[in-house]
Amino acid sequence: MIAEIIAAGSEMLTPFRQDTNSLYLTSELNALGVSVAFKTIVGDNLQHLTAAAAVALMRANIVILSGGLGPTEDDLTREAVASALDISLVRDEKLLADLEARFAKRGIPMTANNSKQADVLEGAEILPNINGSAAGQFLVTNVTDPLGNQHRRIVILLPGPPRELKPLFAAEVKHRLVFLVPERHMAKRVLRMALLPESQVDARTAPIYKQFPDVETTILAHAGEIQLHFQASAKTATEAQSQVDNLASLIKAEMGEAIFSSDNSSLEEVVLDLLAAKNFTLATAESCTGGLLAQRVTAIPGSSKQFLGGAVVYSNLLKTAFADVPAEMIATHGAVSEPVARALAQGIRKRTNASVGIGITGIAGPTSADTSKPIGLVYIGLATPTATTVTQHNFTGDRDRVRWWSSQQALELLRQSLL
Amino acid sequence: MIAEIIAAGSEMLTPFRQDTNSLYLTSELNALGVSVAFKTIVGDNLQHLTAAAAVALMRANIVILSGGLGPTEDDLTREAVASALDISLVRDEKLLADLEARFAKRGIPMTANNSKQADVLEGAEILPNINGSAAGQFLVTNVTDPLGNQHRRIVILLPGPPRELKPLFAAEVKHRLVFLVPERHMAKRVLRMALLPESQVDARTAPIYKQFPDVETTILAHAGEIQLHFQASAKTATEAQSQVDNLASLIKAEMGEAIFSSDNSSLEEVVLDLLAAKNFTLATAESCTGGLLAQRVTAIPGSSKQFLGGAVVYSNLLKTAFADVPAEMIATHGAVSEPVARALAQGIRKRTNASVGIGITGIAGPTSADTSKPIGLVYIGLATPTATTVTQHNFTGDRDRVRWWSSQQALELLRQSLL
Repeated sequence: MIAEIIAAGSEMLTPFRQDTNSLYLTSELNALGVSVAFKTIVGDNLQHLTAAAAVALMRANIVILSGGLGPTEDDLTREAVASALDISLVRDEKLLADLEARFAKRGIPMTANNSKQADVLEGAEILPNINGSAAGQFLVTNVTDPLGNQHRRIVILLPGPPRELKPLFAAEVKHRLVFLVPERHMAKRVLRMALLPESQVDARTAPIYKQFPDVETTILAHAGEIQLHFQASAKTATEAQSQVDNLASLIKAEMGEAIFSSDNSSLEEVVLDLLAAKNFTLATAESCTGGLLAQRVTAIPGSSKQFLGGAVVYSNLLKTAFADVPAEMIATHGAVSEPVARALAQGIRKRTNASVGIGITGIAGPTSADTSKPIGLVYIGLATPTATTVTQHNFTGDRDRVRWWSSQQALELLRQSLL
Repeated sequence: MIAEIIAAGSEMLTPFRQDTNSLYLTSELNALGVSVAFKTIVGDNLQHLTAAAAVALMRANIVILSGGLGPTEDDLTREAVASALDISLVRDEKLLADLEARFAKRGIPMTANNSKQADVLEGAEILPNINGSAAGQFLVTNVTDPLGNQHRRIVILLPGPPRELKPLFAAEVKHRLVFLVPERHMAKRVLRMALLPESQVDARTAPIYKQFPDVETTILAHAGEIQLHFQASAKTATEAQSQVDNLASLIKAEMGEAIFSSDNSSLEEVVLDLLAAKNFTLATAESCTGGLLAQRVTAIPGSSKQFLGGAVVYSNLLKTAFADVPAEMIATHGAVSEPVARALAQGIRKRTNASVGIGITGIAGPTSADTSKPIGLVYIGLATPTATTVTQHNFTGDRDRVRWWSSQQALELLRQSLL
């Protein structure tokens, strides 16, 4: 069975906004063993929307439309689908009464245009929407192709706002689909790695995952992280789970400690857990990353147990004032240097009484004041209770990328030191 | 004239990846006065891709396909479009020679499957791709609808990777379209505001922008910022520009200093410019935002001229050590309090010799240790050469949102104090 998702709304045909509901819907449909074969985005135009619905009804078993269920002139999904199916809209008295009660409760008069939210495709079930005034609709019907053959179709209308669409799908659509699609159970696993080149991960893992043709493997590379997503569907949940687990075990054996999580936790969470396990605290002294590392760590709830804080030592004076980097050292070696990274890590560790101190200094770009030092040159110092190490990195890309990769590399160095 | 954009690639039918080329293409097409009426996303499947192309050729004047031009079995766009148009693919000897030269230069043998990258739609112009091996194609042709009527169509094939598609569109497609679409010139303006409710901005500006039916107005609200986008097309550039400028002037008169930029610069950039104009420096002491404010400021190139740095004072001890907040004050009032925000701002200003100090302390959630203080309670202290002010805020939403809005509010308070 294949599905088509149609997102209705002229704003999604501008350069500013994208349909995102389809990502959620795809994930939910995949979990039921249904593939999405087409996605269509169409504006608030009756002719276009009717054409899009008619095309979808010819080529997909399940057609889900999101948006266009409100009370305004621009909300045309009901009318378009009725027209594409050549059926009527029936005003539902119970739904109309509910709408009137909804307005009465808020003490505002219901204008006439709202009544059309009570119009239902002939034969459709109404899906109550507790988060908005637009109810969903669920219809199982037959369509006739140009050759005269009949095909069964499942047609689902959902409101556009994600905070309405998602709970409505979960509460009203999922269990209806379970009865209508062949039973499949889906299992997923995600393995996450930092900083490795995608090509290297693929070269090492492809010989393994290609032995599992029933598991769909996707490699995602983004912002200094590689994720391996495994997904399998089978007749039983146990079977699906064992397929992804078997593949994950072999990949873990191959990639070893490069994998920082196999339960989808983030690098920040993993590092905080490792610090907690050793009862360690952390402090940071950041120059080129300007607080990005501290910001990432403190984005995690509960991080205050391990993270004490630190300093953003953008100026040279503050490197001395907050992390005790000797001014002569900066004068001799420059602010972006191995000794300064070391001093930042050791200095912030000492000043805060943290177990571990991290110091970052580098040239994020877009220009470099020192021609002998290229953009992307970054030194990361890591001071632990037993030793201080400094590593030199040459990151490529723009300012944002150099800063992000620096913070990512610092977290990964910290993680490896804690293993 | 209307356009349809078809993105080919099975990865865009997963929950993980989205087509983004269409946002760029929409912006470029709009600038030529062409609206995008449909977007279709389809997988690497010959039958599906042919069906999608056939549907698009019936309903749009311009059909742009991205992706599926590579050398692998999954790259089927050329074949699908030829099939939908019922024309042949012709192997281009010059293109084939270029491909062979490309491989020879890299010293690797060209495998047979690469030859299909030299297949061209009968009658199409080849669009050279200097960033990859897949050339684009540009075809003007006629299609016949089911009633026997002929329609002129412009069909454009582009490679999928954005770093290939964008330069190819700019260099090869744009000037060809200019000759084929009715001459229109597009002008744009963006007005940006921080922290106001979208409903309030709309209530105040709608009576104005509704008087300009020829200017398309879009209100975008995201992450504590409201953007008003104006776009107009006209026969001359001057006419289009004067339409958006006239509307922008009236909106600026209505919203006044709430508008932080009318040249699309960011709040961070505007604040840094205002600091520079006064020859001021800035330092920050952040508790609940954990470095987010410093990170945002230092993301701007050249920020080091105004931003000295600061401290991430997550623990109470560091509030004292780095910003001289008296320990007794924290004991008496709690870390999240008006006096502590004031002391943080004044303390970090003094310790760094900055012109302006900002202190932020609050409860980002998801839990609050102090039941008398709700999640979202944030105090922001602002110490300038002339005065120190503290404002209390009650932000709603999750941890990320409270932290982001706190940083946004701090930047806006700083901006207003500098006006």
